[in-house]
Amino acid sequence: MIKLHHLRIGRSIFTVWLLEEVGVDYELDVYLRHPQTMRAQEDLKAVHPLGKSPVIEDGDLMLSESGAITTYVLAKYDTENKLHPNKGDLTVWADFQQWLAYPEGSVFAPLLLKMLTLRSGIDHPVITPFSDTEIALHLGYIVEKLADRDYIHGAFSGVDFGIAYVVSMAERLGQLEPYPTLQAYIDRCRARPAFQRAVERAVE
Amino acid sequence: MIKLHHLRIGRSIFTVWLLEEVGVDYELDVYLRHPQTMRAQEDLKAVHPLGKSPVIEDGDLMLSESGAITTYVLAKYDTENKLHPNKGDLTVWADFQQWLAYPEGSVFAPLLLKMLTLRSGIDHPVITPFSDTEIALHLGYIVEKLADRDYIHGAFSGVDFGIAYVVSMAERLGQLEPYPTLQAYIDRCRARPAFQRAVERAVE
Repeated sequence: MIKLHHLRIGRSIFTVWLLEEVGVDYELDVYLRHPQTMRAQEDLKAVHPLGKSPVIEDGDLMLSESGAITTYVLAKYDTENKLHPNKGDLTVWADFQQWLAYPEGSVFAPLLLKMLTLRSGIDHPVITPFSDTEIALHLGYIVEKLADRDYIHGAFSGVDFGIAYVVSMAERLGQLEPYPTLQAYIDRCRARPAFQRAVERAVE
Repeated sequence: MIKLHHLRIGRSIFTVWLLEEVGVDYELDVYLRHPQTMRAQEDLKAVHPLGKSPVIEDGDLMLSESGAITTYVLAKYDTENKLHPNKGDLTVWADFQQWLAYPEGSVFAPLLLKMLTLRSGIDHPVITPFSDTEIALHLGYIVEKLADRDYIHGAFSGVDFGIAYVVSMAERLGQLEPYPTLQAYIDRCRARPAFQRAVERAVE
C-alpha cells in the first residue's frame, strides 16, 4: 500500500486525486502548515530532508517531486495504460513526457513569483512585469492546446494532474478571469468522481 | 538526425552536451538573444509558440522542455542503458525519475528569483530572503546526495544534465562559494570530453 505524506493545504491533493484515478490503495499521513509562515513544519522534515510534500512511500521506495510520483504511479499501477501511453508510438509518448514536465518546468515559476508579490503586497519593478508576461504566455498556450478538447490530450490522462495544479494555482491568484476555457477545464477536473473522493478523504 | 534549436547563451548547451554524451547525430539551428532584453527573439517564436529553447525536432516530432528532451533522447538512443536505468528495478528507476524532475521542479524557481533580483539590482523584502533560504536548502541537498560520489548516481548518468544546469546557474549567480563539492562537481562535468565537444560545436 502507498503511504502519501500529505501537507494541508497544498499541491498534494493532486497526488491524492492521482491515486484515486488510478484506483490504488493508499493511506494518508497528514501534516499541517505553520499557522503564521504557512510553510511546512519540522514533522515533515523528519520524513524528507527537504520538508516537502507530496512524498510517497511504496515499500522501500521514498519518492518526492510531483512529476516523478505521477510517472512512477502510472508505470507501476496503470498497467492497462488507461492514463498514459506506452512506448509503442515514441512520438505520442514523447509529447506526453513534454506535457508532464511542462507545469513544473515552465508554468510554476512565474506563478510562484506572482504568489510572493501578491502575498507580500509589494510589487517589484522587474519581477512583477516578468511574471505577468510569462503567466499570460503560458495560460494562453494551455488554452491553445486545449482548444475544444475536454482535457490536454482529449481523453483524461496523466498529464492533467500537473496542468490542473498550475491552472488551479492561477485561479487562486486571481489570474483566470481572461481564460474561461481554463476555468471550465479546472471545473471539469474537479467534477470528476475521483477528484471528489480525493477531497472527501484528504480535505476534511 | 535530430535538429536542435539552440539559443545562445543559455540552457540548450546542456542539451548539446546530452546529444554528445549519447553519441547521436545532430544539427544545430542557432538563435541569438536580443542584445538589450536578453530574451529570445521572434525567430525562435516561429519555431515554437513559447519561443523557448531548447527545442528539438526528430522526424515529425517537435519537443520542448529540457527534462522531456532528456527522457526522450535516452529512451530512443541510449539503447544500451549506459545513461539511464531500465524498469527492471522500479525503485532504482523511480529514483532516477525523481532526480530528473528535481532541477526544474524545485531548484530552478529560487535561482530564477535570485537572477531577477540580482539583474535588476533591487531586492524585495519577501522574495530575496525566500530565494536565499531555498537556494541554501537545495544546494545543501545536492551536496548531501553527491557525498563523495563523482556524479549524482555514482557513475555519470542522465540526471547529471539537469543538476549540472542548475549548479552552473548557481555558479553564475555567485552562489557556489560555500559549496566546494558543487564547484568540483560542475568542473568535473565540464571536463568531460562530450562537454568539451559540445562547447566547441555550440559556443564558437
